[in-house]
Amino acid sequence: MKAIELSAEWHPKQGFKLGNKDIKGRLTYLGSQVWKNPRVTLSEKDKPQIKPHEVLIEVKQCGICGSDVHMAQTDDEGYIYYPGLTAFPVILGHEFAGRITECGERAINKRTNKPFEVGEPVTVEEMVWCGECRPCCDGYPNHCERLQEIGFSIDGAYAKYISVPAKLCWSLNRLKHTYSDIYKIGSLVEPTSVAYNAVIERGGGIKPGENAVILGGGPIGIAAAKILKTAGAAICIVSEPEENRSNLAKKMGADYIINPEKENFVEKVKEYTDNEGAALYLEATGLPHVVTDDIQNTIWECKAVNSTVVIVARAEQRMPVCGEYFQVRRAKLIGAQGHSGHGTFPNVINAMSAGMDMTPMITKEISLEEVPNYLELLQSDKQHCKISIKIP
Amino acid sequence: MKAIELSAEWHPKQGFKLGNKDIKGRLTYLGSQVWKNPRVTLSEKDKPQIKPHEVLIEVKQCGICGSDVHMAQTDDEGYIYYPGLTAFPVILGHEFAGRITECGERAINKRTNKPFEVGEPVTVEEMVWCGECRPCCDGYPNHCERLQEIGFSIDGAYAKYISVPAKLCWSLNRLKHTYSDIYKIGSLVEPTSVAYNAVIERGGGIKPGENAVILGGGPIGIAAAKILKTAGAAICIVSEPEENRSNLAKKMGADYIINPEKENFVEKVKEYTDNEGAALYLEATGLPHVVTDDIQNTIWECKAVNSTVVIVARAEQRMPVCGEYFQVRRAKLIGAQGHSGHGTFPNVINAMSAGMDMTPMITKEISLEEVPNYLELLQSDKQHCKISIKIP
Repeated sequence: MKAIELSAEWHPKQGFKLGNKDIKGRLTYLGSQVWKNPRVTLSEKDKPQIKPHEVLIEVKQCGICGSDVHMAQTDDEGYIYYPGLTAFPVILGHEFAGRITECGERAINKRTNKPFEVGEPVTVEEMVWCGECRPCCDGYPNHCERLQEIGFSIDGAYAKYISVPAKLCWSLNRLKHTYSDIYKIGSLVEPTSVAYNAVIERGGGIKPGENAVILGGGPIGIAAAKILKTAGAAICIVSEPEENRSNLAKKMGADYIINPEKENFVEKVKEYTDNEGAALYLEATGLPHVVTDDIQNTIWECKAVNSTVVIVARAEQRMPVCGEYFQVRRAKLIGAQGHSGHGTFPNVINAMSAGMDMTPMITKEISLEEVPNYLELLQSDKQHCKISIKIP
Repeated sequence: MKAIELSAEWHPKQGFKLGNKDIKGRLTYLGSQVWKNPRVTLSEKDKPQIKPHEVLIEVKQCGICGSDVHMAQTDDEGYIYYPGLTAFPVILGHEFAGRITECGERAINKRTNKPFEVGEPVTVEEMVWCGECRPCCDGYPNHCERLQEIGFSIDGAYAKYISVPAKLCWSLNRLKHTYSDIYKIGSLVEPTSVAYNAVIERGGGIKPGENAVILGGGPIGIAAAKILKTAGAAICIVSEPEENRSNLAKKMGADYIINPEKENFVEKVKEYTDNEGAALYLEATGLPHVVTDDIQNTIWECKAVNSTVVIVARAEQRMPVCGEYFQVRRAKLIGAQGHSGHGTFPNVINAMSAGMDMTPMITKEISLEEVPNYLELLQSDKQHCKISIKIP
């Protein structure tokens, strides 16, 4: 079968120490410290075999994620941008939907609580949580201590077929009533679930009639805007300088857009919310050292108490948090990671079924053969929201 | 009647602007920017008059709070240390218990839902929340927008009598079964409630068997240790360099003490908790720029997910928060302020009645006449935990 594979050279930076879960020459939790000179190729690979608890999926659609781009993108020294868990060579791709074509004998369908059958349309969690470590047994699969990641450390879905543990699969059956192309909308369940985990599970959501402010109009920020409007946000504001992304954010439900490079963020939030501010602020820019003051000054100057600040974008920079503001305004700051557990995938699918249409996020569809070119193009392009691969 | 009164001169610093709730020459929300040359005197004052919704209380015992000391303490230019809401001259004192001697006709006792009667032993919230602004009507009296504070902006309890709104009073009747001196333990309800609001109401408490780490062994930190042990903390660690405070923390239930000036905080928490870390961290030092890294490095290196960091000590310094740590460890950071609402005062009284004895926190009892001397002594002394005034 055809597949998009990423290879790179194991060249640890000076001072890098092999972590206790790293495997020399093969796997690391600190990708950008180790991998050099990535190459993305269209390769011919064997069709995967399945184990008794697995299913084989014929991939129909798979989105390109920023992290796919960052695994292929290098700094001046040739090291990859992506800082996390990686094992190369690997087939990329983790935002996918497809049709089950083979079922292991112990592969259970959570929709029916019976063994999976050929033909079931599914999407799949990207996080391969073990189910056996302390966080997994406590109900926190996003914090699995023995995690593998599809399309990062084990083969992903930029391919005709993929085998995955059945426990990670969620049926898309219900979407048939609402969408003509269930695989297109199904490929958006994973990124939507990252936003849902951030604002609903970790952030505690909002009450209908409350306001929300989202910093950053990338796929996660835009998905969050749609989710929060679905949850009844009275006013949802997205802060984003890029015009295409701003337009898409409006299309997806944002009531107001702030251009933080041209407008005063604090004053605009005050204006649009009649000085009330927001119940929930989502940091989805990856620039916490830049936007933390905007967020906490807005909380300080607006009337709302009880605001929640959710940090979903990953960044190493410290945030200069003023505890006094969080005391006087009864506020809190919460870290969000992952998309598994807590009913998130099935809730997202059900919300989509009830009309939460995320498909406008897909701004272009391409073929598998075009992926290497687009992984390069996307290193500078900010016009697109989500480019998605259709596999015939 | 005899009372301890603080006067000071209204001398705004250069650049100070009168806030929209400030009253020139009389009241400000930014005490240290305005008040100069404080004088503490034992004065002869009129016995207060009561309004229909108020009661008159004969004060029996009143603790000295750090903020009382900071209102009397000055910087090099002669400005007071205390930065908050103040209106001078004022009778100091807000951690008190006493006996009702006069009742307004509309003064309701929450214990009976009937009018207060002479003789009822009570303690009183320090925060005079209005009950009419948006946060009050939403159920967040600690964030009242029209707040007055007993012993700061209106007359306090370093006096023979005080008049207060009945809605701020909580009966100490129930403590009679457990304590011979209900006014002594009753005078500790207010500071204990500040700690309770921080770790239980705002921090969400702990589950029995979880661990807690408290940074700072002042009265709030020590009260928090006792509360968290009462809530079933398996291991409660207090970080505190002063020997007297450490000993008291142990007496009040702390299982381990860390001396952060001599020991490695992160390594000691790991050692004492078998690398698990804590469900709850309380910042009660007022030095967030110093201890934030200790807290988040501990969260990062220990196994526990879901840790909550509660900020109760006031400080202007920024905290260098690393969002990544809060994401990977599913952690959150919460600001805590006040002691009113949410069942806090009655829960504290009931917990005391059931055996949560805070009286060892009182390390010395003095007379009203001795207060001016002790307000000066306490500017340098760190030997004592709580000095308390007995009024015969």
